Amino acid sequence: MNFEAHFQAALDGLKERGNYRVFAELQRRRGDYPHATRYLPDGSTQDVTVWCSNDYLGMGQHPDVLTAMHEELDRSGAGSGGTRNISGTMHVHRLLESELADLHGKEAALLFNSGYMSNWAALSTLASKIPGCVVFSDALNHASMIEGIRHSRAKFHVFKHNDVEDLDRLLSQYGPDVPKLVAFESVYSMDGDIAPIKEICDVADKHGAMTYIDEVHAVGMYGPRGGGVAEREGLMGRLTVIEGTLAKAYGVVGGYIAGSKALCDFVRSFASGFIFSTALPPAIAAGALASVKHLKESPFERKRQQERVQKVRAALRATGIPQMENPSHIIPVMVGDAKKAKMISDWLMEHHGIYVQPINYPTVPVGTERLRITPGPVHSDDDIDRLVKALSDIWGQCALHRVEAAA
Amino acid sequence: MNFEAHFQAALDGLKERGNYRVFAELQRRRGDYPHATRYLPDGSTQDVTVWCSNDYLGMGQHPDVLTAMHEELDRSGAGSGGTRNISGTMHVHRLLESELADLHGKEAALLFNSGYMSNWAALSTLASKIPGCVVFSDALNHASMIEGIRHSRAKFHVFKHNDVEDLDRLLSQYGPDVPKLVAFESVYSMDGDIAPIKEICDVADKHGAMTYIDEVHAVGMYGPRGGGVAEREGLMGRLTVIEGTLAKAYGVVGGYIAGSKALCDFVRSFASGFIFSTALPPAIAAGALASVKHLKESPFERKRQQERVQKVRAALRATGIPQMENPSHIIPVMVGDAKKAKMISDWLMEHHGIYVQPINYPTVPVGTERLRITPGPVHSDDDIDRLVKALSDIWGQCALHRVEAAA
Repeated sequence: MNFEAHFQAALDGLKERGNYRVFAELQRRRGDYPHATRYLPDGSTQDVTVWCSNDYLGMGQHPDVLTAMHEELDRSGAGSGGTRNISGTMHVHRLLESELADLHGKEAALLFNSGYMSNWAALSTLASKIPGCVVFSDALNHASMIEGIRHSRAKFHVFKHNDVEDLDRLLSQYGPDVPKLVAFESVYSMDGDIAPIKEICDVADKHGAMTYIDEVHAVGMYGPRGGGVAEREGLMGRLTVIEGTLAKAYGVVGGYIAGSKALCDFVRSFASGFIFSTALPPAIAAGALASVKHLKESPFERKRQQERVQKVRAALRATGIPQMENPSHIIPVMVGDAKKAKMISDWLMEHHGIYVQPINYPTVPVGTERLRITPGPVHSDDDIDRLVKALSDIWGQCALHRVEAAA
Repeated sequence: MNFEAHFQAALDGLKERGNYRVFAELQRRRGDYPHATRYLPDGSTQDVTVWCSNDYLGMGQHPDVLTAMHEELDRSGAGSGGTRNISGTMHVHRLLESELADLHGKEAALLFNSGYMSNWAALSTLASKIPGCVVFSDALNHASMIEGIRHSRAKFHVFKHNDVEDLDRLLSQYGPDVPKLVAFESVYSMDGDIAPIKEICDVADKHGAMTYIDEVHAVGMYGPRGGGVAEREGLMGRLTVIEGTLAKAYGVVGGYIAGSKALCDFVRSFASGFIFSTALPPAIAAGALASVKHLKESPFERKRQQERVQKVRAALRATGIPQMENPSHIIPVMVGDAKKAKMISDWLMEHHGIYVQPINYPTVPVGTERLRITPGPVHSDDDIDRLVKALSDIWGQCALHRVEAAA
């Protein structure tokens, strides 16, 4: 077996299909975000405007967050030095877990090193350690949820995306004594649509199922305190588990679940990915804590984000650039072809210093390749004008499909 | 189904068996490590000396590491803002990956958010994306490796711990055309023993198998530049993949693999846990980079660690406290009972301000519960005297088994 040849052939296949990923290498510039320095392969650099970050609210640049991180570095040092059980639990982890429990109106919360790990570890533990558990998973759930469910080896069904009737039908196949877990997201990251949370909870309650919601693209951004869509809709109390991230709107890194004391303790006690990982560095936890606290009090960033999103949407509409409509802050500009999406992205970068990553398989299905634009409070009117003008130019030059201009 | 009752019953079971984990809540104090502040449940605090950290060399307190982190925070801000593919690749990630590739004499390296994730994602990707791959896994491999192999759904065999003949026998069952992957560690974290790396490579080569070594308890500490046991023994070139961590001897957080360009690109392109995780914050990468660079040049910390280990070992021998002999920096003091190990640990903390976490199931097998002591360059003669005296006291008070004093 020639392993190298196998790896190379697989990579060549990706390149042929236009699915080979080339990472843009950036230097974010504190205080200047969304403007950044890009490092090119030849060693030269270029000024770019970032339009595809998940630091949705610019909190990764917020003075409160950075001050908290500097102070915690000075107080504690760099790493935590161990797993949570073996010398790695820092005072600031406990403070952050309390803050997150309070954010979601739950008894407890549990930190993980990433949102991916929180979904994977929590779902695989719940589904495998509740004997006979059957999982019902939305068709567009994130890879981390799917892998967690797969890893559990529990029986599972995939219900049609956001389809409450299909979920009801699938749940009805099992009697009341079978433990059931319904797993879904609030804001779906690639289409930007939002789940019918109340209706899903109603159906889950009818069948006595636990509910697990991933709010990673919502926490910080929705609800009066940034508790997510479930907070905005007054539904947090109806969800068994709320999973979130500290890496997107909160601008740092890490994931978490919030739920009952017994549930969090159960995951804490049995989840391999939690037990055997070094705990997050104290400075990371301190930065996240400052960010969560700030966004609990301040509606400014959320309001400004929504206003910026509407401004970009209106400008795209006026020029006929096809966008997928949705009720969130995510603007998918549809291209439908991996090579074309990459070509547009490369052209925007090269000629306009505008960075919008093409999104291709496996992040989205083949044929739905897109540019995913995430306007935030940091994008100026001038940034928006330049983005839309550049998109309009390339749409004209490449004779790409336009929709009827709405303005 | 009453989920809460199920969770509570499972937790009660852990408590009855003495396996319920109570986390010690600490505030590490920069510049004062291994001395730290412990927060008690009643809100009071206590000064403690930490003897069970995996910040083995105290690099989490090193001025070069902290300066690099402060500077990168000032330069870039808090988070990376995205996955590696979607705006999250920072210049410093590339610098760190180059440094790690160089450390191990490999063409490339790939960063992950944790050592757990690097093992899980790399092994599950290699074993599942090489058609027909059969995995041969050491019996004492870490949970993250086992879960990665399980997740791949590939066929696998467990070979007797460090037993090259057993490995050879298992490999012999398959013809030369079957792709094979041998996965093992260098330093095993709980017993502190070291694998016969050369002999394992010989047998793997004989059967045309890839080799995957986990050096997380060795990088930074062994080899002239801290490249691990394989560097010390001149064997890095014979290993297909070297996996390491930035969270232990390097004192920060994160994991990585190093290997050929095609292999790292293959894992980069297909590993779900890599593709769908937010990249490490730039300040974390900068701190790790400074730490790796420092330990490449400086043998001081490694030498002083080994000297401290021998001093603790000699003092334990002189008092007859039973320790497991091994050629590494890890000193397991054997107790063999979960409740007893916890009782000793509690007593050390309460009466002596000495923190040594009891290690119980599932981290070690039932019946081999222990205290795991990790002396480092930061532990003073006085720290050592207090530790050994306290252990000797409790051994006497509880009439615990002693071995014949060697000194």
